[in-house]
Parts: sequence; structure tokens; C-alpha cells
Amino acid sequence: MPNATKFHLDEALAVLTRTPAAYDALLRGLPETWVRRNEGGDTWSAYDIVGHLVQLERSDWMLRLRRILEEGDSRPFDRVDRFAQMKEGRDQTLKQRLDEFARLRRQNLAQVQAMKLQPADFARRGLHPALGPVTLENLLATWALHDLTHLHQLSRVMAHQYREAVGPWTKFIGVLHCDGHGAPA
Amino acid sequence: MPNATKFHLDEALAVLTRTPAAYDALLRGLPETWVRRNEGGDTWSAYDIVGHLVQLERSDWMLRLRRILEEGDSRPFDRVDRFAQMKEGRDQTLKQRLDEFARLRRQNLAQVQAMKLQPADFARRGLHPALGPVTLENLLATWALHDLTHLHQLSRVMAHQYREAVGPWTKFIGVLHCDGHGAPA
Repeated sequence: MPNATKFHLDEALAVLTRTPAAYDALLRGLPETWVRRNEGGDTWSAYDIVGHLVQLERSDWMLRLRRILEEGDSRPFDRVDRFAQMKEGRDQTLKQRLDEFARLRRQNLAQVQAMKLQPADFARRGLHPALGPVTLENLLATWALHDLTHLHQLSRVMAHQYREAVGPWTKFIGVLHCDGHGAPA
Repeated sequence: MPNATKFHLDEALAVLTRTPAAYDALLRGLPETWVRRNEGGDTWSAYDIVGHLVQLERSDWMLRLRRILEEGDSRPFDRVDRFAQMKEGRDQTLKQRLDEFARLRRQNLAQVQAMKLQPADFARRGLHPALGPVTLENLLATWALHDLTHLHQLSRVMAHQYREAVGPWTKFIGVLHCDGHGAPA
């Protein structure tokens, strides 16, 4: 199979539609060991990750999408607080965060559908405060991959909890050798 | 939160119970781009990964568990063909593989529950053909982490498809910087 894959709105939406249910199926009702533990220090737990997804659903993706459509690259995106979930909503349960993630995502995707974006729109430009010029296509693709990069992180955080329990098998379990790639997720 | 987490059967089973539904929620009905494409060469697609999970559900975990309980470390585990899913069952749809994974897992976990394993059993030893002595606890923990390591791989394989579509954001999407850690998943 070739690997250069062109962006298609329907395909990006197909991922964005499913990820909240995937996080939910994996996490809801799990014992605290899997939900609240992290990889040490100020790293994130499953609970923190879902909180981050909720935060960006509320304060990032849709605002940036509208900024591109309404103001193009004449005004940069507002910066996002990637750590808001470490300070706010700490009284929420994981269940509440999962519910909120699913609810906001449904609402946001309904708004995207209502925009009736056309292929020509995907090249419209916005201005990222750190990365510079980006397109609407870049933003929508990143929204989908952001769900996946945190799923990648989540599986690593969970696996970390049993890194000793697997004994000699640690050699064969690739996720235990992931160094987090020095990037946000 | 401390990071040394002791193995508990109920906690391992809590993960093993949920992962088939998580894979299902993420993958069922997705366009072929996400399901059949891989990371190039002879790497695995989402379809291949689910096939691998089915194979091991059928030919690995339960056989090894019974081998430990019945023969201890007097006879090594049989070797597993990690690539069986690349040769067999290629006429199956992803939906069939997801159904089979869920069905076999339910069946296997029911058998584990029926064994009424006690904490003293977790130290019972088996012999891995490559890794040497392992315990029943190691085996059960590895079973759970195997689901997670392939979820880690799956999120990377999917993200790979849009590595160009995200444009400058590639810098911030950690999963795009994962090198696969030189281990099976």
C-alpha cells in the first residue's frame, strides 16, 4: 500500500467521530491504577489526558477554524493553555470528562458539517502563533491526529504501570521502550 | 502518584475486558485509508494488527496459561507465529476480525475466571522458549500490555497516513516522531 495519503474531509471526520467512543470503551470504569497514575514527575495520567482533550474541544479547534474562515491569516490564533486540565476541573470524575469530551465533540462536528466546507476551503490560510502559516486542511488533519497522538500516549502511560509485572517480556513489549519522543504527546 | 504498580488479577482483567471494545469503537466502519494502509514496506495495517490479536487469542495466551498450570517449567511454551495474520484469513473483513477478537476474548476471560486463580498461583513458573523462566503473573500482565502496545502501534499507523496533511503541526504531534522502538509493536 502506498503511504502518501491525501486529506479528505470525510475521512478526517470519520476518525474524529469515533475517538471519543474509543477512549470511553477503554477507560470508563477502569480501576484507579490505570486512570490516575502517570509516568512519574509531572507527566500526565489517563485522567489528565481526557481533561486535555476536553479543554481543546472547548477552546482550540473550533475557535481556530472560525478564525481562518473569518479572518484568514490576518490575525494569529490565540495561544492555548496545554496545561489547563492540570489546574481546572480537578473535581470532575473521569466519567464526567469522558461524557464532556463526547458531548463537545458531537456538537463541534455538527457545526463543522453545517459549514459545508468545500475542497477549495482547505487551502485557506491561518496564522499559528508559533508555527506560522497553516492551512485549514492542516488544522483539520491535526485535530484528528491529536486524538491519535494522545491515544498513543495513553497506551504508553497505562503500559508503564505494569512495566515490572511483565518481567522478562519487557523486551518484546514495544510500548515500554517508547521514550515519548520529546514532543507534547 | 508513585509508579511501582503491583499486579492485581482484577486490574489486568479490567483492561483485557475493555480493549476489544476500544479497538472496535475506533476502527469499525472507518474508510479504507485508515484500515488498510501501513507505515510502508512490510509493516502492519490496522487490519493486520487486529488479525494478530485474533491469532494470539486463539493460539497463545490460553495455551501458555494452561501449560504453566499443568506442566510448570518442565516444558517450554510452543513458539507463536507472529506473522500468521499476514498469510491466513486474508479473505476476512475487518468487521469479522473485530467480531472474532471480541468473541474469543470473552470466551478466554470466562475460562480464566473459572480457574479461580489465587495470589499464590501468580508465582508459578513457566518456560518461554526465548526469554527463559517467566511467571504466571508475567504472562497475565503481558497479555494486557500486548493489547496496549498494539494500540500504541495502531495510533501510530493511523497518524502516519496524515503526516503530510498536518503541515507545520508535524512538529507538535508526538506520535509522528515515534520510531517504533525497534520492538515488535
